[in-house]
Amino acid sequence: MPEYHQLTPELVSQLAEIVGVDNCLTGEDIAEDYAHDEMPIYGTRMPEAVCLPATTEEVAAIMKLCYENSIPVTVRGAGTGLVGGSTPLYGGVVLCTMRMDKILAYDMDNLNVRVQPGVRLCDLAADALDHDLMYPPDPGEKTGSLGGNVSTNAGGMRAVKYGTTRDYVLAMTVVLPTGEIQHIGRAVTKTSSGYSLLHLMIGSEGTLGVICELTLKLVPNPREDMSFILPFENIESAIESVPKIKLAGLNPQSIEFMERDIVDTSAEATGNHVFPTEVNGCEAGAYILVTLDGNDEDEIFMRAERLAEIADGQGAFDTLVVQDPSQKESVWAARSSFLTVIESDTDLIDEMDVVVPVNVIADFLKYVHEVGEQNGTRIRSFGHAGDGNLHIYCCANDADQDEFLQQSAKVMEAAYAKCAELGGQISGEHGIGHAKKDYLRASLGETPINLMAGIKAVFDPKCILNPGKICS
Amino acid sequence: MPEYHQLTPELVSQLAEIVGVDNCLTGEDIAEDYAHDEMPIYGTRMPEAVCLPATTEEVAAIMKLCYENSIPVTVRGAGTGLVGGSTPLYGGVVLCTMRMDKILAYDMDNLNVRVQPGVRLCDLAADALDHDLMYPPDPGEKTGSLGGNVSTNAGGMRAVKYGTTRDYVLAMTVVLPTGEIQHIGRAVTKTSSGYSLLHLMIGSEGTLGVICELTLKLVPNPREDMSFILPFENIESAIESVPKIKLAGLNPQSIEFMERDIVDTSAEATGNHVFPTEVNGCEAGAYILVTLDGNDEDEIFMRAERLAEIADGQGAFDTLVVQDPSQKESVWAARSSFLTVIESDTDLIDEMDVVVPVNVIADFLKYVHEVGEQNGTRIRSFGHAGDGNLHIYCCANDADQDEFLQQSAKVMEAAYAKCAELGGQISGEHGIGHAKKDYLRASLGETPINLMAGIKAVFDPKCILNPGKICS
Repeated sequence: MPEYHQLTPELVSQLAEIVGVDNCLTGEDIAEDYAHDEMPIYGTRMPEAVCLPATTEEVAAIMKLCYENSIPVTVRGAGTGLVGGSTPLYGGVVLCTMRMDKILAYDMDNLNVRVQPGVRLCDLAADALDHDLMYPPDPGEKTGSLGGNVSTNAGGMRAVKYGTTRDYVLAMTVVLPTGEIQHIGRAVTKTSSGYSLLHLMIGSEGTLGVICELTLKLVPNPREDMSFILPFENIESAIESVPKIKLAGLNPQSIEFMERDIVDTSAEATGNHVFPTEVNGCEAGAYILVTLDGNDEDEIFMRAERLAEIADGQGAFDTLVVQDPSQKESVWAARSSFLTVIESDTDLIDEMDVVVPVNVIADFLKYVHEVGEQNGTRIRSFGHAGDGNLHIYCCANDADQDEFLQQSAKVMEAAYAKCAELGGQISGEHGIGHAKKDYLRASLGETPINLMAGIKAVFDPKCILNPGKICS
Repeated sequence: MPEYHQLTPELVSQLAEIVGVDNCLTGEDIAEDYAHDEMPIYGTRMPEAVCLPATTEEVAAIMKLCYENSIPVTVRGAGTGLVGGSTPLYGGVVLCTMRMDKILAYDMDNLNVRVQPGVRLCDLAADALDHDLMYPPDPGEKTGSLGGNVSTNAGGMRAVKYGTTRDYVLAMTVVLPTGEIQHIGRAVTKTSSGYSLLHLMIGSEGTLGVICELTLKLVPNPREDMSFILPFENIESAIESVPKIKLAGLNPQSIEFMERDIVDTSAEATGNHVFPTEVNGCEAGAYILVTLDGNDEDEIFMRAERLAEIADGQGAFDTLVVQDPSQKESVWAARSSFLTVIESDTDLIDEMDVVVPVNVIADFLKYVHEVGEQNGTRIRSFGHAGDGNLHIYCCANDADQDEFLQQSAKVMEAAYAKCAELGGQISGEHGIGHAKKDYLRASLGETPINLMAGIKAVFDPKCILNPGKICS
């Protein structure tokens, strides 16, 4: 790790000159939030200054100054990360992009939009709808920034049909660690023009460059969508239905799974009982929630009939149509409540978002529940059955923080090892940050991490940009 | 450029030991084909040896030996490249993957297939259909190897709906230049687990590692497809219809354009007159060919009605349905004949496959035709209107090779500069190889090329793998 310098009063005043004195915070003006993301359990560290630039040129000037003076810089969007990715581990400057929050221009001929990185996902999604367009990536956290979404290759519910954030980034303007401004990618959908620096930047968690503008692909908004609740006896039979649904060519927008346990806790906490617990005289132990979209209601109904046949053949107790708007809202409100409900039901929480092949989801969950039990923690989970991306939470029973972290580390270690054994990956959409670094290395081995570290050094020879993350 | 050694008789016998004496060719046993790809006009060079390994382990042993002895290695698949990517510019070993031609296993639960890199695209496409699955990437050259397709991120006709090869590579086994075997990516569709070495490898044209196995994503085969010919007065009005078709949510599988000139030459050469020249009393100057696919014929007809309305509003002379199998075959036979027809109509040919934003296709083509005329070459083109990927050919009139290359270089230089100005990229799907290196640098600037060269050095410190290509 290279040697970093501390910010001097002179450097602070130079930063203040770049972004304006109101947008350069130091000392007690820095809110405690800047010391961590949504998982302070992974450690906190206050930065020496927080800069809130408004333009690419300001970002470039900040980076140039920090590069010349070996000051570490950590980029932060909305701070909704879950792996400590925006924690300024070595102090220095937090460069917060949330003042760069403009939706710049739609290109209706080429179906794309230019945005600044501080635009929140929910704001782009709503604005695109006003243009009768859809921005498909749909991670659970709607208030995250698009810069953050790209930095973690955020996935979400609709990945089964539409892919992840990666598939919607056409081009970006980045500031390299040295302060140089570069335009990477172009607003075209097909390219074979040298190594893909664009795809390298996507998912690099703010370690290779600062994203200052994005050109994102949009699609015509499907006119209709319909969801279906499939109650099953248990998680095994629920998960077994997933490959069959995918193979049938129904092209579902999403296939989510939920265990009864979570559904009950959510219903208790929110009073929203939209997932039926008893169906046709059978007690539901798990659910699959399928959404179909398209431009024609009749055509969706035809696919729905086929879905019902498959569900029936797989032992679902019914195929319940969620069609009217209020019911739809209830279902998705319940789905969205899961994380909050889990969090409010425990004092301490640790989480993983592994991705495994679809046909081993049930085996994997069973294994993690067992390991959780052996280590005195409660395991709760839900996630994206259609793409194998599982959100799994370790919840403290009565343990204090130190004891819980030890328990949770044992669960994580065993679970990540199992995940690798089953052909999965450490993270489906949250990223590595610093919390999952050791697990990434254990899962991939030394060589890929060394290649990543080599790439990092090519972009950032002084390692000033978000040091201590992924591979540095 | 580092210093390379020549193959000694001892090294040749060590190579022969690795792959078997019949699979290690030297001297006069090396066919002249190994000196170039399909564009010998970009220069040829005979390798000192050609090795045809059958396994990943053999590839690893070859690379280890060559790395230790500083012997350049150029990987070659079916040799169908168009930018000199597999030309062994520095001699050494050509490592041909065409004996690694097995389709290894289908995973019907996770919808993927494991293949060796020497499997030809057409063979996988046909085999997948037997499993009622589709491998969506569909470049014009069906006999190319899948290793080559991945190395150039091959695109093809169906990219509008299905994306390019990049979108179908889940994982690969590669041998690094040092001889180390690595598994990159996993058979899951969502990941945020460190820098994407997978996406870096895709499109890297055999410069970062030797692809020895691929796990490719498949989709359920759509049960129905239907094509439609839209004749227009000229290329401008034809191209203007494309954004409207895309915006209407018809989700076309492909949108191709063809100029009348090519259609006529193809009809003359093949006797296949499937594209009508006079429609409803109007003389067609250009065509758009749209294909819709799906699982239900009625639903495709509904989308077709909407397509016809749009076509009518955009000045198409008609919307001609291509439905019965023999007619469909004729249309696609004509489409597939274009390159062959252009080639057989001229002694010398040079080509580019730029990609530009969809709404500037007509402007760009007009410009290139003008530049062609100014420089004494004939310009002919066709391509993928839906994604802006244009195949443009410079054809020699009566010029000899030296004169033609000078004319063509002037056309290329002007056209690539215009392409960059319009926000396009040098190559949509053919790659850079060594023929387009200077144009890539001119289009992107020094910094991205230097970053690529830095990455190359991380993977291949001795620069032995496919030297002289892209950025080395």
